[in-house]
Amino acid sequence: MDRFPVVAREVIARCQSLAECTEESGFTTRPFLSEPMREVHTRLRDWMEQAGMTASIDAVGNVRGCYAARQPSAPRLFIGSHLDTVPRAGAYDGILGVVLGVALADLLNGRRLKFHIEVVGFSEEEGLRFGVPFIGSRTFIGDIDDELLGRRDAKGMTVTDAIRAFGLDPSRIGDAQAGNDALAYFEFHIEQGPVLEALGLPLGVVEGIAGQSRFSVVFEGQANHAGTTPMHLRRDALVGAAEWIGAVEKEARSTSGLVATVGRLEVEPGAGNVIPGVVRTTLDVRHADDAIRTAAIQRLHHHAGDIAARRGLSVSWKHLLDQASVTMDASFSRLLEHAVDASGYTVHRMTSGAGHDAMIVARRMPAVMLFLRSPGGISHHSRETVLPEDVEAALVTGMRFLEAMEARHD
Amino acid sequence: MDRFPVVAREVIARCQSLAECTEESGFTTRPFLSEPMREVHTRLRDWMEQAGMTASIDAVGNVRGCYAARQPSAPRLFIGSHLDTVPRAGAYDGILGVVLGVALADLLNGRRLKFHIEVVGFSEEEGLRFGVPFIGSRTFIGDIDDELLGRRDAKGMTVTDAIRAFGLDPSRIGDAQAGNDALAYFEFHIEQGPVLEALGLPLGVVEGIAGQSRFSVVFEGQANHAGTTPMHLRRDALVGAAEWIGAVEKEARSTSGLVATVGRLEVEPGAGNVIPGVVRTTLDVRHADDAIRTAAIQRLHHHAGDIAARRGLSVSWKHLLDQASVTMDASFSRLLEHAVDASGYTVHRMTSGAGHDAMIVARRMPAVMLFLRSPGGISHHSRETVLPEDVEAALVTGMRFLEAMEARHD
Repeated sequence: MDRFPVVAREVIARCQSLAECTEESGFTTRPFLSEPMREVHTRLRDWMEQAGMTASIDAVGNVRGCYAARQPSAPRLFIGSHLDTVPRAGAYDGILGVVLGVALADLLNGRRLKFHIEVVGFSEEEGLRFGVPFIGSRTFIGDIDDELLGRRDAKGMTVTDAIRAFGLDPSRIGDAQAGNDALAYFEFHIEQGPVLEALGLPLGVVEGIAGQSRFSVVFEGQANHAGTTPMHLRRDALVGAAEWIGAVEKEARSTSGLVATVGRLEVEPGAGNVIPGVVRTTLDVRHADDAIRTAAIQRLHHHAGDIAARRGLSVSWKHLLDQASVTMDASFSRLLEHAVDASGYTVHRMTSGAGHDAMIVARRMPAVMLFLRSPGGISHHSRETVLPEDVEAALVTGMRFLEAMEARHD
Repeated sequence: MDRFPVVAREVIARCQSLAECTEESGFTTRPFLSEPMREVHTRLRDWMEQAGMTASIDAVGNVRGCYAARQPSAPRLFIGSHLDTVPRAGAYDGILGVVLGVALADLLNGRRLKFHIEVVGFSEEEGLRFGVPFIGSRTFIGDIDDELLGRRDAKGMTVTDAIRAFGLDPSRIGDAQAGNDALAYFEFHIEQGPVLEALGLPLGVVEGIAGQSRFSVVFEGQANHAGTTPMHLRRDALVGAAEWIGAVEKEARSTSGLVATVGRLEVEPGAGNVIPGVVRTTLDVRHADDAIRTAAIQRLHHHAGDIAARRGLSVSWKHLLDQASVTMDASFSRLLEHAVDASGYTVHRMTSGAGHDAMIVARRMPAVMLFLRSPGGISHHSRETVLPEDVEAALVTGMRFLEAMEARHD
């Protein structure tokens, strides 16, 4: 097992070299099927072929590298994550999971297993170019339709146009679907949060992806002169909203696993000497258990109504998003936990508060996910990083997981 | 006293006709020495002359109308308010006090008193054109300097340029000062707040003008992913600011006469799925007693520090404005209260939460002020209004006040 530290450093070096494939020099900004994506494809295909894989690009721009099993009729384990980035991103969000998949094939060093390993680099997950995420993984599971293909980017190009302009054939999009030989999907991803660091752990086994609701919540009172309106005659929308923000925090702190965030707040008229008449906020609520999330939202709804009634305000809610939680496959997750444990690391089960490709792929096949610690909890930023020893832990655990899969299907 | 209802309606009609003197058709927007101010001058001079007054425009654009006493060497009572408006203003803020002064001279119907009455329409109070208020009344009390005269408007014109462009002579500015014959200053003004309406009273005797402090207060925490950062690992600047806004309201509600307002609040980065990292707010605190205001600010300062420390935030304060409270003249105010009472109205003493010309003039001579009820508390808006019966109450009270002054100086 001497090779692991060396391969871990190579994985990091590869991620850093791919971060140079960008639309904006000095930063890493790499949307779906943008020009810099061509170089990402070239390098990944080279590395895949060096690892004894057969590499190709499917019709939606996903990179596919197959490390063949002993038998052609064998089932297929997919290992993947995404290739695209947010604007001014870090070097690891998404791409690390793809590079780790290639590294595992490399570590097998020609040894064939009872299942194929197909590494998939999804062309789109962040939603940057077309305002809708998961184009790569949705195509992979066959959930792509004319509405999605007809969406336009900022320049007026449709998804179909973008596919064609990149030199791919949109009529072949059906071929990008996973076949019936699919065994499972395995995704490595950086945590993008501070939990593992706070616990001092390199790895986390993702039990599920939190369900999520988003609302816009508007409080309306009466704008008035800040000097001439005594306190008892005010209908201050901001003081009402502030009281509610306190209730949102209290609700989330008193419900295990719940996160609730007011991320936007705009005041009208917004002058220092005018009592706020209107406050526009957003509410983002997430939990692994949809029933708990729904109940919390109901309580926050009631809280807002009570506060508004008491203060002579009105409050209106608008539903922006509702996404059910997704559970990772229990049986394969137990296998992954054993692999973490057998590799000498503490097993920590956790919920992902952010969406990932695994959430989409789970609709089609058993999916498992392993988080790597994010130093400082930092992601979507050039200071996003990953520790070499954590990448090594992921590689060791990944190899043990493959061994366990091999044993399981003996 | 049959004439009062008729004159009250005429006062309102005159204010409404002056509201048509505007830079922006369909609204009332009339800055310092703007073109529409010429027509205001013309109409006011006509009305003054009809009331038996000698009318002129001083070097800073104040309209001055003198209703002479029996003796030329008599002392001089000034009655005034301002001619300029905020953008898209109502028809009464300022100008009502000037038109009421002319109406009182009219009601004297040629009868001469033991004191001159000089009605002053100050050319500037709102601070719209040069970003600094009270140019008219500061000139009137001799508090004008090169710094003020050199300030530039949005087009780069100085105050001196504006005076010259209007056809006035800036070298005569010293002549605009009130002379040593000044007896007192009397200002009628709409309340611009809801207090008198809530009490069901037409008039309020202003005891003083609240002192005022303004700050910018910035809370800084750590922006982070709303999904991946558990509640106990957050440093949410908005939740901290919200807790403090609650403390600001509590402080003001528990201190009689204190008003405290957070009128602006800006969140960075301000996305629905990102925990707020920075919140920029303003704080406006006013009270008639400067010591009470200062003590309240200190407590709010401590509150902010405590909240920030407990939440791992930092908080920084920047002083924007500090204005001491101004007391109206006690002896003349008693005279005004007697006039209110003798006219059959309930005497209500109150503090003005907004600044007025009387606050400036009080530095030079005894000043008194009478508020008229503002329906709906609405001001600085086209829906600003005044009730005919309240204008009548002001006229009756004003006449009794003149009688009392006449008696007092017998």
